[in-house]
Amino acid sequence: MIGPGSVVGFVGTGVMGAAMAGHLLDAGYSLRVHNRTASKAAGLVERGAVWCPSPGAAAMGADVVITIVGYPADVEDVYLSPCGIIESCSPGTILIDMTTSTPSLAMRIAREALEHDVVALDAPVSGGDVGAINAKLTIMVGGEREAFDAVEPLLRVLGPNVVFQGAPGAGQHTKMANQIAIANNIVGVCEALVYAESAGLDPRLMLLSICAGSAGSWQLTNYAPRMLEGDFAPGFYVKHFIKDMRIAKAEAELRHTILPGLDLALEMFEELSRRGGDDRGIHALYLLYKARSVPAYYIGADDDEA
Amino acid sequence: MIGPGSVVGFVGTGVMGAAMAGHLLDAGYSLRVHNRTASKAAGLVERGAVWCPSPGAAAMGADVVITIVGYPADVEDVYLSPCGIIESCSPGTILIDMTTSTPSLAMRIAREALEHDVVALDAPVSGGDVGAINAKLTIMVGGEREAFDAVEPLLRVLGPNVVFQGAPGAGQHTKMANQIAIANNIVGVCEALVYAESAGLDPRLMLLSICAGSAGSWQLTNYAPRMLEGDFAPGFYVKHFIKDMRIAKAEAELRHTILPGLDLALEMFEELSRRGGDDRGIHALYLLYKARSVPAYYIGADDDEA
Repeated sequence: MIGPGSVVGFVGTGVMGAAMAGHLLDAGYSLRVHNRTASKAAGLVERGAVWCPSPGAAAMGADVVITIVGYPADVEDVYLSPCGIIESCSPGTILIDMTTSTPSLAMRIAREALEHDVVALDAPVSGGDVGAINAKLTIMVGGEREAFDAVEPLLRVLGPNVVFQGAPGAGQHTKMANQIAIANNIVGVCEALVYAESAGLDPRLMLLSICAGSAGSWQLTNYAPRMLEGDFAPGFYVKHFIKDMRIAKAEAELRHTILPGLDLALEMFEELSRRGGDDRGIHALYLLYKARSVPAYYIGADDDEA
Repeated sequence: MIGPGSVVGFVGTGVMGAAMAGHLLDAGYSLRVHNRTASKAAGLVERGAVWCPSPGAAAMGADVVITIVGYPADVEDVYLSPCGIIESCSPGTILIDMTTSTPSLAMRIAREALEHDVVALDAPVSGGDVGAINAKLTIMVGGEREAFDAVEPLLRVLGPNVVFQGAPGAGQHTKMANQIAIANNIVGVCEALVYAESAGLDPRLMLLSICAGSAGSWQLTNYAPRMLEGDFAPGFYVKHFIKDMRIAKAEAELRHTILPGLDLALEMFEELSRRGGDDRGIHALYLLYKARSVPAYYIGADDDEA
């Protein structure tokens, strides 16, 4: 039985991971933590987590291993490299990758895990840093149903909306659908604002009219005010969103599925990245619309033109 | 003072107009109604509204005239033609066009109205037929503040979210911002669904994961299930949405504002229209994504391929 008292190896204690690991500590789980930058795990170690020098070390003796790292290459590294998680964990361990990564890698890890008598789930999240901090994440899970059932109570510590989506990779595919919806929607939020401003409206009054109706969305309610305030702090990094959109585009192309809205959004975010926007939040797309009418407009986070 | 007992000329008793006029009757206003197709006003006349043979006749002796007709050409016709509303109404009348129309026409009507000692407001709505029926419309108003203040209680009979947006045309501009957000968002809803299906997910489970989070929107919650059920009844007609997007695009171009997401959505809806989708609801855009992988797929409302 997995529950309070169980040992959880936790790899990746960035902004989101640290908050999530903290909730597990609060709920009574015993944590073994590793992070590439050790200082980011210090707060958890002070609260009783055991520091481990590698992902494999964090997995040793754990009942469950959770990873939330940066890119698919990082996921591959922590799970599949020699002395990585799969080689280090005990038979029967349940591995949960919560990174947004590729469905094909999730399937590969699930296969390799089975060969070592462990089960791997892909369980990416949405809700961002705020969702992680407030334990309000949405968690979309692919893998074996039995393993999902075993860890569902643990996952519910991190957020109320935990849904089993199907076979290995299904969690990642669900996250891709989520990102595709966001990609198109953030374009719409920018364009509604830019239009309103160019037409001479007070954009805040405009938002009062449109947020509550059929144009309403989480993005509009949460990001449009920040765009208007010039607050482009992440939140959700442009560079990570580009990674996600590239995965979604590649997966769609594999299936000959044409998604012109996603393609357009990705092109715009890639231009935003080329202009220095990688470390902004995704709502900095608004600056690209501004930049297009201002030559040599720099979008990077170091200046404060916003 | 405008309030219950005041005489309201009401022109345009289609699905939305009839519901709105009915709420005004319920609230104690006296109605003089006209509609191009008289039969659509019959229910109101049975309930005590006075049938009038023309828009101008409906305006005679009214304290307030409300219009909600189809296209800008219809708006121009009912207000500005000889024996139209402006020539027929009494000095001091407040005219309220609730059609989604062009900001420039709203400004022109406001100017012409002033020359006849009447005031015209542009007050387009969002919320669709359901919002009209449930008196939950969002109403965005441009024009003179004093006239707005006089009719605000009347407008609140039709919906709770009534916001004064500024000078003549500002209501229409706000509606355009609303439509721009919707245009991009409906593309995202389609692409999330199409991706999920092509990836082999259960799209209903996928929606359970993504509707409540940062990909969430009114469109996703309300239209995605209808797409999956094959229910493409309007709601909001494709042909009317194309009209709106064309207005928004033209207004943006006037100001050299580049809105690539809107342009893409409009292109897709125009293709949907060419394939027979004009009289479907806007969520029939989903069928275009399906159609692209099926040669000669017909999207019109007369068959039931959906």
